[in-house]
Amino acid sequence: MTTVSTKPYLIRAIHEWCVDQGFTPYLAAVVDRNTLVPPGAARDGQIVLNVGYDATHELSIGNELITFQARFGGVAHSLAIPVGNVVAIYARENGQGMAFEVEGGAAGDEDDGAEEAAAPEAGSAEETPDGDSAGAAGSRPAGGRGSHLKIVK
Amino acid sequence: MTTVSTKPYLIRAIHEWCVDQGFTPYLAAVVDRNTLVPPGAARDGQIVLNVGYDATHELSIGNELITFQARFGGVAHSLAIPVGNVVAIYARENGQGMAFEVEGGAAGDEDDGAEEAAAPEAGSAEETPDGDSAGAAGSRPAGGRGSHLKIVK
Repeated sequence: MTTVSTKPYLIRAIHEWCVDQGFTPYLAAVVDRNTLVPPGAARDGQIVLNVGYDATHELSIGNELITFQARFGGVAHSLAIPVGNVVAIYARENGQGMAFEVEGGAAGDEDDGAEEAAAPEAGSAEETPDGDSAGAAGSRPAGGRGSHLKIVK
Repeated sequence: MTTVSTKPYLIRAIHEWCVDQGFTPYLAAVVDRNTLVPPGAARDGQIVLNVGYDATHELSIGNELITFQARFGGVAHSLAIPVGNVVAIYARENGQGMAFEVEGGAAGDEDDGAEEAAAPEAGSAEETPDGDSAGAAGSRPAGGRGSHLKIVK
């Protein structure tokens, strides 16, 4: 049996924490040929998605793949994000959560130690392309105030 | 509603990951007046416990308190560890897991950033006081090879 990384377990943990605390879980991911996201939803090669139960349907956070349906511009889309592409999961309301090293991602520093991650900017995270409750939540995480994310490898 | 910390969620996540992967989850905690552990089981103010389902009965990892029963020297004991006292949870087999900042604990560096934590030594972690499958698993975590733990605050 191949050992599964702790990453999907930690993503599920932070997602559950957000939901239990009444926070909105935002998932930041690198968009590449392995991701399925609506055309034009990525910015600078990344996407930030509201993965709360209110904003998604049939959300599944598996050990390899995160899948769900969400509305963009009023149109339902199916999304698929490999766990390996996930850069961060955090609460929109306070930025608390967890960031991960992703090759080619914004957090892709190759240093071996854990580091303080770039925190999503609350402002950019609240932009939505079309005002739907679901969908792309803003641009890629950028350095900002209120950083609570730590990179975990 | 008071916001619960992410810590108990992360402890449950690593515990579940260990169990799913067939690893033995070891929990390191600071022993003080808030903990209930068998007399003499602590070393240097800390205890390392096997919290696998094979080694415990009625294990509950709550948001505030971790409780279970385990055998020490053939005698069943009830244990209670506040989540705040937990220094680390990791797989005995490879040291992978997560470490936390605990005031007064071995990992109690007050630096604000995340850091590489002291990894438990595989050797000391395999000592058991009486050869039971359950119970105190060794001394407090010390710096060692194969460190995979990162401190999360």
